[in-house]
Amino acid sequence: MQENTDYEQSSGMTRDNIEAVRDKLLRLCTLYLAINSADKVPEMGVSPFIRRDDGLYIYTSHLSPHVRNLIGQGEATCMLCADEGDSQNIWARNRLKFNVEVVEITRDDVNFDNLCNEFTSVHGPTMGLIRNFTDFHMIRLEPGKGVLVLGFAKAFIVSGPNFDITAHISRA
Amino acid sequence: MQENTDYEQSSGMTRDNIEAVRDKLLRLCTLYLAINSADKVPEMGVSPFIRRDDGLYIYTSHLSPHVRNLIGQGEATCMLCADEGDSQNIWARNRLKFNVEVVEITRDDVNFDNLCNEFTSVHGPTMGLIRNFTDFHMIRLEPGKGVLVLGFAKAFIVSGPNFDITAHISRA
Repeated sequence: MQENTDYEQSSGMTRDNIEAVRDKLLRLCTLYLAINSADKVPEMGVSPFIRRDDGLYIYTSHLSPHVRNLIGQGEATCMLCADEGDSQNIWARNRLKFNVEVVEITRDDVNFDNLCNEFTSVHGPTMGLIRNFTDFHMIRLEPGKGVLVLGFAKAFIVSGPNFDITAHISRA
Repeated sequence: MQENTDYEQSSGMTRDNIEAVRDKLLRLCTLYLAINSADKVPEMGVSPFIRRDDGLYIYTSHLSPHVRNLIGQGEATCMLCADEGDSQNIWARNRLKFNVEVVEITRDDVNFDNLCNEFTSVHGPTMGLIRNFTDFHMIRLEPGKGVLVLGFAKAFIVSGPNFDITAHISRA
């Protein structure tokens, strides 16, 4: 595989078009997580998220094994994926996959209440029910390197919390 | 956590209702996979699948790192998840998560052509384009134990290729 930094030329897509699809994925409500576990297979989960400049936030319960592993390991793989119902070709669902560093925001953190309020405004009244459940944890996922896949031969390297597009991946 | 085998009583849902939601998930077009990798974070992917009595089949390229790990390790975690657009409460998307054993069906296997034909009839003409690409592999995912999540306090243990419901999970 080869990484072409002149990605508009290499992919035949304009930067505006690529970024528009990326930004639509970032407006999804939920993300998928995969975390290495002590078993031979990873843990996996799905969570509502909100986005801020420094990363994506989830609020989730440690009664799920993947959440205990997430906090314990401090690293995970994250994916945003267009709904099947929004995918023209099921073989090439638009998706954004990236590594994250995991940081817990404790209940006494100055930002905790604001983050809860933002969850309520984005994802509705369920947050009011679970806000005081102490098995739930506020977690920031800080994106590192990733890949944006927009179809066959349309895969791009992305980087950082803004998911800046840095290269197009092609067969060498 | 506690597993209640009298799951209708324990969950307040009838077996018919639980199975109807499970079967709707099994009619999805795509599944998510997470595979342990040599890195600290797992690989992750999404693939169209077909279902047969002995498991779920995917047809996917080893140019994706997660496919090389999938074949190399022979085990993975799999998830089917209702579209966001079909989820009444985004905090509790219906989902079915389970461990799988991985078996490759080689191109000279007596079943290979029939499986390809079934992919074409279920997922359309893209299969015709990729059928002869030798970087693609036909893989059977054999489900072991898993969990069906249908909302808060509505999680059930499932088992085997028919995803038989065996227990309701509740806080002890």
